[in-house]
Amino acid sequence: MNEFELIRTYFQRDPLDPSVILGNGDDAAVVSQHSDFETVLSVDSVIAGRHVPEMCPPDGFAARLLGRGLSDLAAMGAEPQYVLLSLTLPSLEPGWVDHFANRFHQLCVRFGVDLIGGDTTKGPLSAHITVIGRVPKGSAVTRSGLKAGDDLWLFGPDLGGARAYLDVLDGQESDHELWAERYWRPEPQLGAGVSLRGTASAMIDISDGLCQDLSHVLDQAVGSASVKLQSKFIPLCEDLVERFGQERAMEYALTGGDDYCLLASIPAGLKVPEGGRRIGMVVKGESERILLDGKPLPDSWQLGWDHGR
Amino acid sequence: MNEFELIRTYFQRDPLDPSVILGNGDDAAVVSQHSDFETVLSVDSVIAGRHVPEMCPPDGFAARLLGRGLSDLAAMGAEPQYVLLSLTLPSLEPGWVDHFANRFHQLCVRFGVDLIGGDTTKGPLSAHITVIGRVPKGSAVTRSGLKAGDDLWLFGPDLGGARAYLDVLDGQESDHELWAERYWRPEPQLGAGVSLRGTASAMIDISDGLCQDLSHVLDQAVGSASVKLQSKFIPLCEDLVERFGQERAMEYALTGGDDYCLLASIPAGLKVPEGGRRIGMVVKGESERILLDGKPLPDSWQLGWDHGR
Repeated sequence: MNEFELIRTYFQRDPLDPSVILGNGDDAAVVSQHSDFETVLSVDSVIAGRHVPEMCPPDGFAARLLGRGLSDLAAMGAEPQYVLLSLTLPSLEPGWVDHFANRFHQLCVRFGVDLIGGDTTKGPLSAHITVIGRVPKGSAVTRSGLKAGDDLWLFGPDLGGARAYLDVLDGQESDHELWAERYWRPEPQLGAGVSLRGTASAMIDISDGLCQDLSHVLDQAVGSASVKLQSKFIPLCEDLVERFGQERAMEYALTGGDDYCLLASIPAGLKVPEGGRRIGMVVKGESERILLDGKPLPDSWQLGWDHGR
Repeated sequence: MNEFELIRTYFQRDPLDPSVILGNGDDAAVVSQHSDFETVLSVDSVIAGRHVPEMCPPDGFAARLLGRGLSDLAAMGAEPQYVLLSLTLPSLEPGWVDHFANRFHQLCVRFGVDLIGGDTTKGPLSAHITVIGRVPKGSAVTRSGLKAGDDLWLFGPDLGGARAYLDVLDGQESDHELWAERYWRPEPQLGAGVSLRGTASAMIDISDGLCQDLSHVLDQAVGSASVKLQSKFIPLCEDLVERFGQERAMEYALTGGDDYCLLASIPAGLKVPEGGRRIGMVVKGESERILLDGKPLPDSWQLGWDHGR
């Protein structure tokens, strides 16, 4: 099977959305524009041996790829519309690709996106996904805008499960169904993202770890700002404390990557959309930017995931 | 230097175009929409050891990447506007990246595109570029529409030079300045692409080799169609015949990849934009789809580049 047959067989589907004027299969795709909206775009990668194990099951690869990409749109308050996929495969043998493509298309339908373009080539397993969505004009929620007086809210599942699953993959821990699910089936918080337009002063997805992503938001705060987190409000994934103890569970929750939650700052007193959990508050800048129960974060914590490591 | 410092240092520039509402540096970029236009999108990859040598000079890597991507927009008749870059690097050491980024930004300015998003990670050298442009509503030129009675036109430089340069890289041929330029500095035919809106019945870029890309256009022809090419009209790159003889020169020109020309079918009698060269005509379908001087293409020719090889 060559590249062109592979694309025709596995990746060409009729687009679901009428805004797709020309989908996969030409030099480029064509989609319509509407002046009431703005286009939101991002690209993300999943590299075998880095973001996922070297021998990666195709359905997990597909789910992590789409979850990771779409989470960026959720973090802007955007509705997803289209994806483009650049896929590098060690071989173009149908088996793995068949399973990958099936899962990928299933998830596209579920999230309401059309695969409108792509590229396939031979090489070490990796995939790069471009996600495209839209927001009503002027309503994208950015990382800039957090300020003293805001509360800090979390939207999405309990934290730390995906990080704990890395210990399972390393053979240090016995398997755990929920951690595996957090790792292999991340759920982009698209509904929450849309509901936070006009309410959140700033928003980010915490795929690189809560503290690291929070520090990006603090970099772009309005005026000087520090964040006070309260450990009793940090939602810990099932069995984290039991297996690792309170201290390490908290470290996993606050610094472990791959939690596809949204972190939003919301001015105190505003009505908060359903599903949010308040985990702290923003105060005027202090010497420490992030405090946990009034104390600096332990020096031993690596603040989050660095893709260059 | 970690991922975030690297992106800040090398890849964040202020956008040139006012349609960019939010550029690089948030979860996603935001650009405006205009209902008189349609958006054109494509993704392309350059993998070291496959599309370029394993040890690839950074400026050549940048030029091939952008050239390859933007050529897809040219082939739709689109004006380029934005790019997103997903870059995988063996190390995040500044040297190579510095040169790459400089060349990349230079070319972005030259082609009038803003880098609005990206992703950097560690791994075997590869880059995936998403290109985004626009066409006035309804004016994109697709691969479908070639029909008997059209002439076949080529826009861009003489053919076969980039293919010949592969023999230089292999050590089979002595170096050649023009071939090296064709290989390392492909020139997307953006002006020609725009000028062919409303004139070309079908268009494609011949990055995978003229005959292979022509066969994609024939797959989507209106009615049955064959193409008669005339070897005397095929523009051969400098010194091809001298070094390889007529037969092999023609093979390189018609099947070698990486010629970033546009191939357009235009109904006979229509005014053809400047710079076009007529290389053949479209007739009613015969048993052979592509004829060269009235004869089938030699069986020994591989029709073009297969990214899955």
